[in-house]
Amino acid sequence: MEIEIATIGGYEEVGRQMTAVRAGDDIVIFDMGLNLSKVLIHDNLRTEGMHSLDLIDMGAIPDDRVMSDLEGDVQAIVPSHGHLDHIGAISKLAHRYDAPVVATPFTCELVREEIEDEQKFGFDNDIVEMEAGGTMSIGDHGCELEFVNVTHSIVQAINPVLHTPEGAIVYGLDKRMDHTPVIGDPIDMERFREIGREGNGVLCYIEDCTNANKKGRTPSESVAREHLRDVLYSMEEYDGGIIASTFSSHIARVKSIIEFAREIGRQPILLGRSMEQYSGTAKQVGIDFPSDVEMVGYRQSIDQTLERIMNDGKGNFLPVVTGHQGEPRALLTRMARGETPYDLEDGDKVVFSARIIPEPTNEGQRYQAEKLLGMQGARVYDDVHVSGHLRQEGHYEMLDALQPQHIIPAHQDLSGFSGYVDLCESEGYQMGRDLHVTRNGNIIQLV
Amino acid sequence: MEIEIATIGGYEEVGRQMTAVRAGDDIVIFDMGLNLSKVLIHDNLRTEGMHSLDLIDMGAIPDDRVMSDLEGDVQAIVPSHGHLDHIGAISKLAHRYDAPVVATPFTCELVREEIEDEQKFGFDNDIVEMEAGGTMSIGDHGCELEFVNVTHSIVQAINPVLHTPEGAIVYGLDKRMDHTPVIGDPIDMERFREIGREGNGVLCYIEDCTNANKKGRTPSESVAREHLRDVLYSMEEYDGGIIASTFSSHIARVKSIIEFAREIGRQPILLGRSMEQYSGTAKQVGIDFPSDVEMVGYRQSIDQTLERIMNDGKGNFLPVVTGHQGEPRALLTRMARGETPYDLEDGDKVVFSARIIPEPTNEGQRYQAEKLLGMQGARVYDDVHVSGHLRQEGHYEMLDALQPQHIIPAHQDLSGFSGYVDLCESEGYQMGRDLHVTRNGNIIQLV
Amino acid sequence: MEIEIATIGGYEEVGRQMTAVRAGDDIVIFDMGLNLSKVLIHDNLRTEGMHSLDLIDMGAIPDDRVMSDLEGDVQAIVPSHGHLDHIGAISKLAHRYDAPVVATPFTCELVREEIEDEQKFGFDNDIVEMEAGGTMSIGDHGCELEFVNVTHSIVQAINPVLHTPEGAIVYGLDKRMDHTPVIGDPIDMERFREIGREGNGVLCYIEDCTNANKKGRTPSESVAREHLRDVLYSMEEYDGGIIASTFSSHIARVKSIIEFAREIGRQPILLGRSMEQYSGTAKQVGIDFPSDVEMVGYRQSIDQTLERIMNDGKGNFLPVVTGHQGEPRALLTRMARGETPYDLEDGDKVVFSARIIPEPTNEGQRYQAEKLLGMQGARVYDDVHVSGHLRQEGHYEMLDALQPQHIIPAHQDLSGFSGYVDLCESEGYQMGRDLHVTRNGNIIQLV
Amino acid sequence: MEIEIATIGGYEEVGRQMTAVRAGDDIVIFDMGLNLSKVLIHDNLRTEGMHSLDLIDMGAIPDDRVMSDLEGDVQAIVPSHGHLDHIGAISKLAHRYDAPVVATPFTCELVREEIEDEQKFGFDNDIVEMEAGGTMSIGDHGCELEFVNVTHSIVQAINPVLHTPEGAIVYGLDKRMDHTPVIGDPIDMERFREIGREGNGVLCYIEDCTNANKKGRTPSESVAREHLRDVLYSMEEYDGGIIASTFSSHIARVKSIIEFAREIGRQPILLGRSMEQYSGTAKQVGIDFPSDVEMVGYRQSIDQTLERIMNDGKGNFLPVVTGHQGEPRALLTRMARGETPYDLEDGDKVVFSARIIPEPTNEGQRYQAEKLLGMQGARVYDDVHVSGHLRQEGHYEMLDALQPQHIIPAHQDLSGFSGYVDLCESEGYQMGRDLHVTRNGNIIQLV
Repeated sequence: MEIEIATIGGYEEVGRQMTAVRAGDDIVIFDMGLNLSKVLIHDNLRTEGMHSLDLIDMGAIPDDRVMSDLEGDVQAIVPSHGHLDHIGAISKLAHRYDAPVVATPFTCELVREEIEDEQKFGFDNDIVEMEAGGTMSIGDHGCELEFVNVTHSIVQAINPVLHTPEGAIVYGLDKRMDHTPVIGDPIDMERFREIGREGNGVLCYIEDCTNANKKGRTPSESVAREHLRDVLYSMEEYDGGIIASTFSSHIARVKSIIEFAREIGRQPILLGRSMEQYSGTAKQVGIDFPSDVEMVGYRQSIDQTLERIMNDGKGNFLPVVTGHQGEPRALLTRMARGETPYDLEDGDKVVFSARIIPEPTNEGQRYQAEKLLGMQGARVYDDVHVSGHLRQEGHYEMLDALQPQHIIPAHQDLSGFSGYVDLCESEGYQMGRDLHVTRNGNIIQLV
Repeated sequence: MEIEIATIGGYEEVGRQMTAVRAGDDIVIFDMGLNLSKVLIHDNLRTEGMHSLDLIDMGAIPDDRVMSDLEGDVQAIVPSHGHLDHIGAISKLAHRYDAPVVATPFTCELVREEIEDEQKFGFDNDIVEMEAGGTMSIGDHGCELEFVNVTHSIVQAINPVLHTPEGAIVYGLDKRMDHTPVIGDPIDMERFREIGREGNGVLCYIEDCTNANKKGRTPSESVAREHLRDVLYSMEEYDGGIIASTFSSHIARVKSIIEFAREIGRQPILLGRSMEQYSGTAKQVGIDFPSDVEMVGYRQSIDQTLERIMNDGKGNFLPVVTGHQGEPRALLTRMARGETPYDLEDGDKVVFSARIIPEPTNEGQRYQAEKLLGMQGARVYDDVHVSGHLRQEGHYEMLDALQPQHIIPAHQDLSGFSGYVDLCESEGYQMGRDLHVTRNGNIIQLV
Repeated sequence: MEIEIATIGGYEEVGRQMTAVRAGDDIVIFDMGLNLSKVLIHDNLRTEGMHSLDLIDMGAIPDDRVMSDLEGDVQAIVPSHGHLDHIGAISKLAHRYDAPVVATPFTCELVREEIEDEQKFGFDNDIVEMEAGGTMSIGDHGCELEFVNVTHSIVQAINPVLHTPEGAIVYGLDKRMDHTPVIGDPIDMERFREIGREGNGVLCYIEDCTNANKKGRTPSESVAREHLRDVLYSMEEYDGGIIASTFSSHIARVKSIIEFAREIGRQPILLGRSMEQYSGTAKQVGIDFPSDVEMVGYRQSIDQTLERIMNDGKGNFLPVVTGHQGEPRALLTRMARGETPYDLEDGDKVVFSARIIPEPTNEGQRYQAEKLLGMQGARVYDDVHVSGHLRQEGHYEMLDALQPQHIIPAHQDLSGFSGYVDLCESEGYQMGRDLHVTRNGNIIQLV
Repeated sequence: MEIEIATIGGYEEVGRQMTAVRAGDDIVIFDMGLNLSKVLIHDNLRTEGMHSLDLIDMGAIPDDRVMSDLEGDVQAIVPSHGHLDHIGAISKLAHRYDAPVVATPFTCELVREEIEDEQKFGFDNDIVEMEAGGTMSIGDHGCELEFVNVTHSIVQAINPVLHTPEGAIVYGLDKRMDHTPVIGDPIDMERFREIGREGNGVLCYIEDCTNANKKGRTPSESVAREHLRDVLYSMEEYDGGIIASTFSSHIARVKSIIEFAREIGRQPILLGRSMEQYSGTAKQVGIDFPSDVEMVGYRQSIDQTLERIMNDGKGNFLPVVTGHQGEPRALLTRMARGETPYDLEDGDKVVFSARIIPEPTNEGQRYQAEKLLGMQGARVYDDVHVSGHLRQEGHYEMLDALQPQHIIPAHQDLSGFSGYVDLCESEGYQMGRDLHVTRNGNIIQLV
């Protein structure tokens, strides 16, 4: 059976991931993502009403025109998890393919919400939920899709595996090797090891190289949680304002903040549209998430809530807000500018349970936000965070578990691949032979 | 009563700390430390036989000649904890003063060991043990010395407080604000708050500015422990060699390594002269430390032990070794060069539970050590560590607790003080008035 | 005669410089500057109509209330050169003092323009021009003001010296030690050496510490000119668009760009309000500056000019534009966004003859600007620049020339002073004795 | 005619360059270099007596075993210039090939000196001199070798071009685009443009990517010269010691130092074995280099010379010494340690006309050397230097001139290639199609 892999997007950048695997006549697409920074560099661009071709030209969504070179039928569109760089182009591109979107329940729900906002394109693909550990047949030639449970900075992340007669294709984006995640099961290394040894083994492994140039091992979410606990407990006796900000999609982190807020005697309130969206979705699909936490999404309601907090006493609350990157229009930045009813005072605490996404634009905006917070007297705790992506020793362990015949580095630019290429070569792979450093828009023939 | 503070050493650098407080006729000296980097820059210098004046000229030990300008009698020499930059000059300078060394038991024992190695000067000062929480009278004019329990990267660290009729002098070197240390009690913030409010309050606070330019809060040792646990457990199924290195004086960390080693089924062995010294001392003075762990200090015995490890199977052991800074003659570097019986193989793990002390010399040596380890196939896990020094928010909390009338930043150079000065000024202090940015060899008159 | 120095502004930051020297009953004020970044962090703030007290509260202009503690009469307000951080608060503060503004002709003209824009305060101080090398009497007690020629990134910079019976007060802001400047005379080191040795020598030296932590010597403007020549000549055969941007106040640099533009066959045109202002002023006061270069300041005229350039052929022109820091509303950023008639094409060149002023906000904005330029195909040449401020070896030479009794570091924060303090101490000065590390709002009594 | 390119060494690192081009039956080898850092990481290794296979295993010299897969006869071994990473393996590998070494006269002479030191292997290949601009026939099938003049940090650097019936193969290592070099002719861009347009144009271009991640244009040596002039002239009135250090092979820089030393009234003396070797060779082959400068190579003679300098007065001399990287055994480090008769005194100047080769080992050693110099009172001027390698805009211009059909990035690791790959793709090349990102030991079939 012929096996081809089309590296459509996300092979020159972090963002707009899209990969297609053809096994004989059957094609499975992994991810259809958005590169948000390509949108934000333009002033006031709203993507909801834009045509896919314009977004392709901007480099914001994958250029899927290479799909016409793949001879076969798309059987499934499989987002690995719910981050925008993995699902954000579904509303623009999925309608071209007569295939269901197959994902975990939480991811499915986020896809549904994406589609709701879309104004340009219709979408009538089926959305099929499958849990981690589940499998489904693909086409009529013996292929099977399996979801292996992984751990990432969003819940219900999986690594989809396409089992073919020639061996397994493991789509390794995005994950950390976490044996003690705060929500959900540990990464299923046992299953990866089985896949590496059963049948024809792993024909090809596509790997998340985000942190491939970093030494060591990405710490577990339990380390971030212990760090967060330490930070929030150190504030236990403070009776003024405490504010936290984190990635709204990071349900486990939001949960930890909520729990520790309560343990130190404060009522957590989630504020901001994306906070409400992700946490609301988590509750809705039955994630192990506090069911009784207040969430407020719209600006006017937020300001009313902040007014209530001021009236009832800041010391009784812990608002969890958007704005950890210093985004000019986010709630935290508005608070820092004094544009909300919440008065920051000398000694009030702001916890950034996030790191700055490394780009000068973000560094500049975050710097501004912290300056403004400081001008109000606020005290800043930053970097209470661990990454959601494997570092070198995680990559080493994955290679050991899967022993793939072919490897394709992804989710970085060429410079970002370099540490992974060095690792693979030290393990006996050879670039150009079984280690495929590639770019967007290529097709790699494996069999 | 006149109160003067002589800032003798460690006010232009990290290293060779020494401060004297005169209250009327009575003088207490806090710390007598060594700046090791001033020794190491010279090839093959052995300090044991050197004269103090030569060491003073090199900037290696405090220039205590300013003591002749303080009119009074030295009543006690009080090292705050057992790190070399706080006790390493006692063997060279203490004999000039007719006063006992007063310290916690662990620190006392380390002082005794320092003195044993000394070849140039005699030493017959008394060594008096006092536990955290203890007090003793100083002189006949109502002064009292108290040890407040603090948390640092070595056990039995205290902040000595000299209570005078004019208020308390709090010597704040070195500490982290840790509510969940792995060994010993949490930092005694309650007592600090009492001292800040009782009697005349705090006349002067001398602060450890090592990390004063860093935002946020130094994490608890429990965070490092959770990180270490995560790292070592991730190796649970590996059956080859695992080596760890950390600061030998960091008893809590060594203990954590020992415990996790056993939990993953390996026998920990401490190797290297300083490993044996510090851990042996910890056991001896009754620290809560595993009593049954093997320690080997001398080179020949180390090599025999490594041979035994090779014979019995590397997979059964976890050697804890010296060399985390890539020191050319340390055990880990010798192992990396293949100069010991321990054979490193592809996939063997080396855990650096330490960070590189930030100086280009160390960066270069550690780089070399890691390169050599990598050439043998070893996998490196670095930076499994948290600092032992307060960051900005710890400083903020200390000011809030103590509300000192005067502040003297210490344990850094001028650039290192800058973040602390900014903090103090934002809290209403003013440089030149009640915030004393000073240099080595000055005397500050407070009353 | 009593001599006091009030360090009013610019002793904790780069920006809002202001220093007053009292010699007996006579006071001279050096500089009254603006800290622009304290204005820009607020959205859409226009200072022209603001009250000085609000600007003081924001940290934007010097807090001159300490002047009431100086007993004497202000005899002169002496800006050392025309940069905003040295003259930008004159319109807000000078009217309070019954004294003339004394400066070099170019600086005087810039002061006049500042005042013209002012809407809140009246200004009727005299403006007195004095050339480098000139002197004038101050008060009736034997004091004299002298202008010593120095070299900086703006023309007609001087170091004012107040000769008093007790020795000279040398106000050393801002300069580079340039023996081959492109415009004007070399720095007058001979005169500095004389001042250091004549009469009572130098009582006090106030030094520009901007680059005091940088090793070596700041290169001459002739090095930047050679670099610029090399860059522009390398484009000689290119027939598309070439754009340059630099500090508009950097007349020597603008002149070099104009000359090299012509040498490679292009017509330079200065575009942007501040370009027109500074270069126009230079021409007006008779600086050795090309008299026939076109300058366009207003937005509408700029766009018309760019349209003309497009019609006549981009290859015939070299627009010199504002926007080297990526300022969102500057001309270059507008060009990068495609908001002007000038079409950037593949291969067009953009030369940044400036470095990014080191602050994350600027880094972020410049990054955005370069990204946008790159999206249009433009090729970027950055950092064709040398600083206008002394580095360590320049400081060393100044100390050697002046041999001052007292030293006051200025024009930096505490961290920025550290390299200079180390240097002074290695030359025998001592902090707290004759080396005065101070903050805004202090008064130092020298005699 | 079949054309193949074997990328033997230097495609994963800077160092041990070696590339073979097969055109039909004829093979030309470009460069045979040494990766010195792979030797230095081992203590006390002397390569002269080592076998090539051991050096290959260490990664110190190219693994030329892939040559057996190229069917044809080696007709010439062509080092592009005389740096060790381009000629340092000739003594170990050239004897295996029955072919002359063809190079410019200066490079030939350096090759002869390399071979003289060799103890393990015999060498009886012819050494054939050819000037820049020269050509010679290769084999009997119409191939021709041409030397195009380029500019680099060593004299007589060329880019060899193999003209084949299928088009030219341009070997682009190493160069800067310098129109005003200090010695020799400017880079021959006209010839490159001709080659790009004549006959079948350029079939393949192998590019020096050392600085491919750096923006802008590498400045001309004339900029470094102007910088150096500025630095040395600023010391004109100093009558103590002045020392300079630079790359001994950088003949143009050494020449500039010699000239400016004389202009400021000092006698330059070149000290150190490699100083003597390279400058002596330059004189010998008739480079435009001061014929009358004193050079001293051996340690005992150096110390005698330094004694003479001390006796005659340091102020009359300017020693140009080895040791710019802080190498522990180099002369400058010995001087810094006080191990030579030359007494450094307060205010003496040390000029590093070199930058630190970016590796932590070098950073650490240089830091130590500067610390030791500072402890003697020396003043340090560093980084008076420009690189010898193209930056991005030079690469852009080369692509524009040559318009190659195929491109192979070289002289970096994968991360170092990334900027060049981005540039090539923005110019329409595509990785995997006509842009060949490769590794050591591969063969690329072009025709």
